[in-house]
Amino acid sequence: MEIKELNTSPRVLMGPGPSDMHPRVYKALATPMIGHLDPEFVTIMNEVKTMVQATFKTQNNLTFVVSAPGSAGMETCLVNLLEPGDEALICIHGVFGGRMADIAERCGAKVHKVEQEWGKPIDPQQVKAALENCDPKIVAIVHAETSTGVKQPLEEISKMVHDKGALLVVDAVTSYCGTELEVDKWGIDAIYSGTQKCLSAPPGLSPVSFSDRAVEVLRNRKTKVQSWFLDLSLVMNYWAGAKRAYHHTAPISQVFALREAYRLVLEEGLENRFRRHYETHLLLKEGLEELGFRYLVDEKYRLPMLNSVFLPEGLDEEPLRKLMLEKYNIEVGGGLGAFAGKLWRIGLMGHSCDANHVNMLLSALRKEMK
Amino acid sequence: MEIKELNTSPRVLMGPGPSDMHPRVYKALATPMIGHLDPEFVTIMNEVKTMVQATFKTQNNLTFVVSAPGSAGMETCLVNLLEPGDEALICIHGVFGGRMADIAERCGAKVHKVEQEWGKPIDPQQVKAALENCDPKIVAIVHAETSTGVKQPLEEISKMVHDKGALLVVDAVTSYCGTELEVDKWGIDAIYSGTQKCLSAPPGLSPVSFSDRAVEVLRNRKTKVQSWFLDLSLVMNYWAGAKRAYHHTAPISQVFALREAYRLVLEEGLENRFRRHYETHLLLKEGLEELGFRYLVDEKYRLPMLNSVFLPEGLDEEPLRKLMLEKYNIEVGGGLGAFAGKLWRIGLMGHSCDANHVNMLLSALRKEMK
Repeated sequence: MEIKELNTSPRVLMGPGPSDMHPRVYKALATPMIGHLDPEFVTIMNEVKTMVQATFKTQNNLTFVVSAPGSAGMETCLVNLLEPGDEALICIHGVFGGRMADIAERCGAKVHKVEQEWGKPIDPQQVKAALENCDPKIVAIVHAETSTGVKQPLEEISKMVHDKGALLVVDAVTSYCGTELEVDKWGIDAIYSGTQKCLSAPPGLSPVSFSDRAVEVLRNRKTKVQSWFLDLSLVMNYWAGAKRAYHHTAPISQVFALREAYRLVLEEGLENRFRRHYETHLLLKEGLEELGFRYLVDEKYRLPMLNSVFLPEGLDEEPLRKLMLEKYNIEVGGGLGAFAGKLWRIGLMGHSCDANHVNMLLSALRKEMK
Repeated sequence: MEIKELNTSPRVLMGPGPSDMHPRVYKALATPMIGHLDPEFVTIMNEVKTMVQATFKTQNNLTFVVSAPGSAGMETCLVNLLEPGDEALICIHGVFGGRMADIAERCGAKVHKVEQEWGKPIDPQQVKAALENCDPKIVAIVHAETSTGVKQPLEEISKMVHDKGALLVVDAVTSYCGTELEVDKWGIDAIYSGTQKCLSAPPGLSPVSFSDRAVEVLRNRKTKVQSWFLDLSLVMNYWAGAKRAYHHTAPISQVFALREAYRLVLEEGLENRFRRHYETHLLLKEGLEELGFRYLVDEKYRLPMLNSVFLPEGLDEEPLRKLMLEKYNIEVGGGLGAFAGKLWRIGLMGHSCDANHVNMLLSALRKEMK
């Protein structure tokens, strides 16, 4: 088997992530390597931490980037906060809520579930009722269900969780840097995201943040965290300790790229970025509805960056999706879990969230659906 | 805090990793993004798998790349093979053996230890004696102790381990692609490495491989793997399943770069590459000894790519190491663990393993040590 020079197609990424990256991010990615304990890299880690705090809108000191993809960020939050025998209340309205429940069970937690039909948000009244019948250490919920495109309101639920004395754990993989997200104001105690969605950095890293309440829980653990790699008592010394103790070798090139992606976010400004995502979503929505596509999610709860749509009656999703990729180099996503083969997930994330992208896709669809 | 354009110094990397990368690897790293489920990416994963097999010298089907650094590769091997109550025999002759014991304990295993003075290899007789007093499911040992520079002979130990019916788990983070390593011939059942050492790819990935014996043990687990992210029963479907099921988003850019790094290794040929590492090591050794440096490890057990040396009498290691970095842009490593502040670790890894690098370092040292 001869393996030739890498030769990929020039894809236009309009799926559920990764998204296209800005040329400046590619340039930063290819910065010559330096050591992970080099004083220059320590400065870069400090800068990145500041920008994670700014974009999460938090003052949390325990804010950093896990050296692995978003699902490892999810696991970081859960394995550090849960110990065997703890109760956890997990809200499930899509694939990623289900994954949180799976991980919490692997932590030895007693898992209670609040479940909602996929495509609808969790109703705060469901959480209220569940909290009357259990005493969880954490309540975990997905802010932006990547499998359905639902934006979950969090403020009312956050209040209930704290009234009960529990911690609120939030998945913000898809919403982060693309729509309103307020870690401190909303009282989120542990949050994780990914880099390959609205941040438009390479996949493989997971920004996370923990409130002082959560740090207190970490400090009072009775058992060791079951994962060495994700154990915050060790990772903290690398990201936040006075003397940057070696823990593992950071993915240096990716951190270079991430730093540049954050600079782009802050240059644009979060509010402008959120507006761009919303307006581009409206443009896409108008075109899709003209073509007979139908949204899964009620308008009020739609994520602008993840458009889950049923195809017009009689159209098979897979051949058309394949045609978009092969003929037009445009990637859109298929359904996940219960929606596999049933709908498309069209992403408008970060650098991919652009009127030209929308027009390209709509024109190609118009031609092929004639 | 204004965060400016990234502006790093042009370092020459001669520490314990990361190493310098070939220009072709940077070029591959900056390849425009494609999706992690794109058929083109699936082809790339197949190609990478083939090259991991070729470089590990194995036919193992369960051979792939963990989407996180080498220490996550270590954890992958241990959390998948161990269940609560299992016995594990861990050989410790440096930092990384100690880390394996820590992880095995977090898996709920009953850990037995064979310990050797740092800087010396484990004596097979120690393993033999230990095996008489326990009945381990796995025996774990470090082939190339990055904290000391010891190359551990494995064949005799492997035979003992298999005679006892246990599995042999090996850390090859620093030796892989720089010195002889034979997964199948030596009977290694689970192995992990890193990408930022003699492979000269970006840090952040961990090539791993599992023998059929190990896969049988995975299949017969009674409990779920404690880590969702590293659970091979799930990851396998992504890397080796008939239908590439979504598990997590792969670090695509890094896989592009890794693919190119493997192409460079195979173009050079493993035997040539090993010879280059050995010959460059001899050149460095000659120069260092002339300057009064003294090797920690006996000649017979020295790793060519990791030279642990005590400085000449009366020289403080830290100021001189700092001067090398600040004045010459040359990074060498300090001691780790018990050797912190006591010695240097000079790396000759992959693209950094080069006569010009050695001459640069030796000339700078000669000038500053006058």
